Amino acid sequence: MVKQVEFSLRPKTRGFHLVTDEIMAQLPELPQQGLLHLLVKHTSCGLALNENYDPDVRHDLGVVFNELVPEGNPSFFHTLEGRDDMPSHAKSVLSGVSLTLPITNFRLNLGTWQGIYLCEYRDSGGPRKIVAKILS
Amino acid sequence: MVKQVEFSLRPKTRGFHLVTDEIMAQLPELPQQGLLHLLVKHTSCGLALNENYDPDVRHDLGVVFNELVPEGNPSFFHTLEGRDDMPSHAKSVLSGVSLTLPITNFRLNLGTWQGIYLCEYRDSGGPRKIVAKILS
Amino acid sequence: MVKQVEFSLRPKTRGFHLVTDEIMAQLPELPQQGLLHLLVKHTSCGLALNENYDPDVRHDLGVVFNELVPEGNPSFFHTLEGRDDMPSHAKSVLSGVSLTLPITNFRLNLGTWQGIYLCEYRDSGGPRKIVAKILS
Repeated sequence: MVKQVEFSLRPKTRGFHLVTDEIMAQLPELPQQGLLHLLVKHTSCGLALNENYDPDVRHDLGVVFNELVPEGNPSFFHTLEGRDDMPSHAKSVLSGVSLTLPITNFRLNLGTWQGIYLCEYRDSGGPRKIVAKILS
Repeated sequence: MVKQVEFSLRPKTRGFHLVTDEIMAQLPELPQQGLLHLLVKHTSCGLALNENYDPDVRHDLGVVFNELVPEGNPSFFHTLEGRDDMPSHAKSVLSGVSLTLPITNFRLNLGTWQGIYLCEYRDSGGPRKIVAKILS
Repeated sequence: MVKQVEFSLRPKTRGFHLVTDEIMAQLPELPQQGLLHLLVKHTSCGLALNENYDPDVRHDLGVVFNELVPEGNPSFFHTLEGRDDMPSHAKSVLSGVSLTLPITNFRLNLGTWQGIYLCEYRDSGGPRKIVAKILS
């Protein structure tokens, strides 16, 4: 069986944001066994699974991604939507825009330190639409 | 229920290619609700979801990936298959080789600007085999 | 139908390790058609699908990832868990921590040269817990 919910995450500033609770609040009761699939319907942000405890990790991920794909590359053609736009597309390909997560005993079955990140690569990306599918 | 189709994408030159239509033409009618899973059965190309409108984005993604993993790294051991080969393996790990996409009302449920990319990292990779699974 | 198995991979040193056989040995008989989903329940390692033949590819992937995310970045805040820790979180976001793989005729349906990698980004990460879901 496949259930679907669509919703938006509140706008966030550029950076890596822990959104496990914001997402779970939008979902119906999870099944005993299954999978949760999440897709963010945009091309300049991403979803990832990483450290849910120390906010310094999110800061440092911003450092790494900004250094991996610097703004103002003179070889870029796609420059009309702002200096942060083309790097955002590239970062989105690097992190990916979807997650598939196991469900066990009515809960997400993640590691102790794993949380869901919205990776906002634009300076201000606005609300971000998510499609969630629950398979059981 | 799980349906499967296997097919090949036509050979492409090095770069990021929008293949949404080429893939959809190979699939049977999609179910009302479900998921589409795609895997490319190769280790030197990838699949990604990104901008479907401005071809400049695809050009610039090529710039970013070529700068992230330069050819001719003197620390490489795996050099017998050509200068473009080992960077292609690394780029394939960075983008990934599979996508899972939501299906709603008999259609892919993607963002307005999202399209499926074949990321061809070899100078000429030949036809690329895809396994598509449709879950409903 | 969804079946689940949880198990641990044996500890590995820093690097990219081919673990297809180690994982398959932990799984029950696969169904005729379906999908296998794997999640590694940690934030400083990853899972990827790449070359299963030449070990030089695994060596060179280590070179690429170590150059992409160097240790000792003076902008890092998260430094208390060792020099290899923060780069490991970033590499984990780059490769991802899960794989979804097609099953056809009771076997994984991968390309000839594709194998499953555990990407161990810590100098010594200890055993790594995996959740495997089999959908049919």
